[in-house]
Amino acid sequence: MRFAFPLMAIGLEVAMIALFGIFVQYETDQNLSQKSNSTSVDLDTSLDLYPFFRDVHVMIFAGFGFLMTFLKKYGFSSVGINFLIAALGLQWGTITQGILHSHGEKFHIGIKNMINADFSTATVLISFGAVLGKTSPVQMLIMTILEIAAFAGNEYLVVEIFSASDIGASMTIHAFGAYFGLAVAGVLYRSGLRKGHPKEESVYHSDLFAMIGTLFLWIFWPSFNSAIAEPGDKQHRAIMNTYFSLAACVVTAYACSSLLEHQGKLNIVHIQNATLAGGVAMGTCADMNIPPYFSLILGSLAGIVSVFGFKFLTVYDAGGCARFFHYNSNCWRANHRFDSKDTYLGTAI
Amino acid sequence: MRFAFPLMAIGLEVAMIALFGIFVQYETDQNLSQKSNSTSVDLDTSLDLYPFFRDVHVMIFAGFGFLMTFLKKYGFSSVGINFLIAALGLQWGTITQGILHSHGEKFHIGIKNMINADFSTATVLISFGAVLGKTSPVQMLIMTILEIAAFAGNEYLVVEIFSASDIGASMTIHAFGAYFGLAVAGVLYRSGLRKGHPKEESVYHSDLFAMIGTLFLWIFWPSFNSAIAEPGDKQHRAIMNTYFSLAACVVTAYACSSLLEHQGKLNIVHIQNATLAGGVAMGTCADMNIPPYFSLILGSLAGIVSVFGFKFLTVYDAGGCARFFHYNSNCWRANHRFDSKDTYLGTAI
Amino acid sequence: MRFAFPLMAIGLEVAMIALFGIFVQYETDQNLSQKSNSTSVDLDTSLDLYPFFRDVHVMIFAGFGFLMTFLKKYGFSSVGINFLIAALGLQWGTITQGILHSHGEKFHIGIKNMINADFSTATVLISFGAVLGKTSPVQMLIMTILEIAAFAGNEYLVVEIFSASDIGASMTIHAFGAYFGLAVAGVLYRSGLRKGHPKEESVYHSDLFAMIGTLFLWIFWPSFNSAIAEPGDKQHRAIMNTYFSLAACVVTAYACSSLLEHQGKLNIVHIQNATLAGGVAMGTCADMNIPPYFSLILGSLAGIVSVFGFKFLTVYDAGGCARFFHYNSNCWRANHRFDSKDTYLGTAI
Repeated sequence: MRFAFPLMAIGLEVAMIALFGIFVQYETDQNLSQKSNSTSVDLDTSLDLYPFFRDVHVMIFAGFGFLMTFLKKYGFSSVGINFLIAALGLQWGTITQGILHSHGEKFHIGIKNMINADFSTATVLISFGAVLGKTSPVQMLIMTILEIAAFAGNEYLVVEIFSASDIGASMTIHAFGAYFGLAVAGVLYRSGLRKGHPKEESVYHSDLFAMIGTLFLWIFWPSFNSAIAEPGDKQHRAIMNTYFSLAACVVTAYACSSLLEHQGKLNIVHIQNATLAGGVAMGTCADMNIPPYFSLILGSLAGIVSVFGFKFLTVYDAGGCARFFHYNSNCWRANHRFDSKDTYLGTAI
Repeated sequence: MRFAFPLMAIGLEVAMIALFGIFVQYETDQNLSQKSNSTSVDLDTSLDLYPFFRDVHVMIFAGFGFLMTFLKKYGFSSVGINFLIAALGLQWGTITQGILHSHGEKFHIGIKNMINADFSTATVLISFGAVLGKTSPVQMLIMTILEIAAFAGNEYLVVEIFSASDIGASMTIHAFGAYFGLAVAGVLYRSGLRKGHPKEESVYHSDLFAMIGTLFLWIFWPSFNSAIAEPGDKQHRAIMNTYFSLAACVVTAYACSSLLEHQGKLNIVHIQNATLAGGVAMGTCADMNIPPYFSLILGSLAGIVSVFGFKFLTVYDAGGCARFFHYNSNCWRANHRFDSKDTYLGTAI
Repeated sequence: MRFAFPLMAIGLEVAMIALFGIFVQYETDQNLSQKSNSTSVDLDTSLDLYPFFRDVHVMIFAGFGFLMTFLKKYGFSSVGINFLIAALGLQWGTITQGILHSHGEKFHIGIKNMINADFSTATVLISFGAVLGKTSPVQMLIMTILEIAAFAGNEYLVVEIFSASDIGASMTIHAFGAYFGLAVAGVLYRSGLRKGHPKEESVYHSDLFAMIGTLFLWIFWPSFNSAIAEPGDKQHRAIMNTYFSLAACVVTAYACSSLLEHQGKLNIVHIQNATLAGGVAMGTCADMNIPPYFSLILGSLAGIVSVFGFKFLTVYDAGGCARFFHYNSNCWRANHRFDSKDTYLGTAI
């Protein structure tokens, strides 16, 4: 088992290189002019989508990476394993999505494929949140390969078989929303965890690191919901609907956090999570022709549901903490004394 | 008082939804073609301004949010209350600015309105810096509503009544600069605070969090000063003037910090604040036809004035620290032991 | 010596102002129409390059700034001195590059000059990594002036004398890659340092701050390698090649880190550094017509070489730690008790 992780990682990377060698070519102006004589001109070498790509890229690597750092022990794993999953996942996502859409032929890739590849990793990263601390890096590699293949198959079904091409973006992000539910279930473990560590000294700063993740996700979510929307009115509307939904969600999430907590105080855990519900909720209908006040209503409800769900689904969680720490000690070199002590505390619960 | 905050927040959000329902519609290509037959075509559905919007959005939520985290006790409040104010404020800013410009009619919104809405929150966030720790969340909600209404009225006067439409951007940002002065006055409390806490262990990392805020404000300030400038030469010049002014400001701020501190050392507090003065100073004249060396001079002077002002206006501050911590204990759930201890230290000064 | 730093900094800024006054003018539409009658139209007032500039700007100030914060004692110096060097360096880079290309005449600047000015600072920031803690701020000012002049001279030789204009970008970034080697040599000091401080309590969070730097460098590196590439196919290809090279590099860096560490654990130090090697390696050939699988191979090799190099070049490092801390105590005001204690620990090694 000592070499399981490095050998599997190297093996997967070699497989990616082989598959890229067989199937993947870059889009060029020459390709495009040939294509435009034939069927569709979906891909292009223009950089119109590049700013959207960068925003999504920040969300995937910095946003999701730091979101889970609230767990004192999980700073390294949250940022580090997130990094590994996303880097492997975007290569695999490029291949699976490309092969399915080209029906096994060679295919050309452009900026839009990079956005879709990043999207495909999001599903794994969200599921990662639910199993953080309960899986080894080897298991995460396997999960990445399986889940992205499933995602690509699902996206292919929606877009190609059901011909739901115009709202394809919404449908795949809808699937995204469903996975998010799973993630929330997993995140709830932390509440019990925290009660067990009343004296953990760095939790305060851990929560600030998590706010980096929350804020970069929140700030760029309008780009996420609009990145592959139809240019023009639809993309414009997707940006604005998400912007307003997120803003309303923040206000109601704060209100509900204060309602539910002792003495009306705010709970940073709610702020880190529920404020993003407005973006998830809007994912399904961002580019539709809905009036602005509807975005505010949807965002407001998402904030309320998210905080209440977080509060009352947590009751069942009690003894998950020990398992929570189990694999972590295997994962990072314990070169800091204080680190080992914490692991001890963790497993002693 | 237990339910004052959640009820007021929910009430304000309901009011926003109602006002959006009555007044606000999205800009669409159809709207625009109708409009272009009539008077002005100020709004559009193109995404030219979207990159500028995103930069401003990062500054408002991540930049201002982390700027105040240098206060060990204020990490949560700085990031968290900043988040709440800005999310509520951008909705209210959209409405007040829109209603004033449309003279009470229904109005259409686009990306430019999103930029202006974010701008309107900046005034509150700057004032927030001056009162951090001295106000409750309820008071912050009231301040947000009042200050943004005042800002929108001021902006309307400048642009519509005085017909100063061509330099509108500069004028409203000038107002911004004025508020900044108030903020500095408030920030000065920290100096006394720090002397009172010689053993605070996390201050070092708190100052690094604050540098995240400083750097993201500094990096994107050229976008802030040019976002609503006239496209073409003027916008181009606004970007470059701000870029050079900020660079010069950093050099003189470091020099003055070393001049004023014991044994010529640098003071991280000066770095966090004075390096931004070059952007504020340039806000009034960024798009004017000034030569590059003038930008350097203006930025250099701003850095000098800011560090000296910070140093010598601080003398008067002595006993403000106790008040400084007063409301904080009401605001966040004290679920970390070390947190309560710190509050105790805070109020014990 | 007490006033050496402030006087030198002020003096350099005055010199910049004078040189800007003599040589530098902004590009305007009027300039351009005059120029287009004559020779080349390399500069423009369009904002096509502005999004690339912002990404590079984030990398220089936030990415490089936070990359070195892993050293507990070097949080302030890493972010703070990085800030000073880059702010001075971009002014000096603007002048030296402009004067060389204009052969001592007045010259006009635009967004592309801002990108090149930021690039020129990167070489100093990388060398800064190799001497962090061994130099005073005064020495850093001198190094900034000398190294950027050398960089501009080198870039001039490559582009103008050798007429290697089409791959100019690659060549200067190649030079960049060479400097990177020096930086790695310096970074190695940390390994010894860490063994000496088994009980340092904030190292865990210091490493998370460093991950902010790593991630923002990693995320925006495609923009770095493509910013001044020829628009169209070449720029498009530079983005995609770098994207895939970086992704492959992450996977192999993790694999090798686990291979080399005790019990197959991951080492956060490798993650922070080796994951970027894929971007550096691609810097020399990003815009060339290479197939996608070649990018993956190049990135994979870069990750492997970087981790192994880091591991086996570290053996020689043993007693560099005392010097490592020498100047730091002179640099920042020791206003935190814990700070001085750490310095003591540091010099006691």
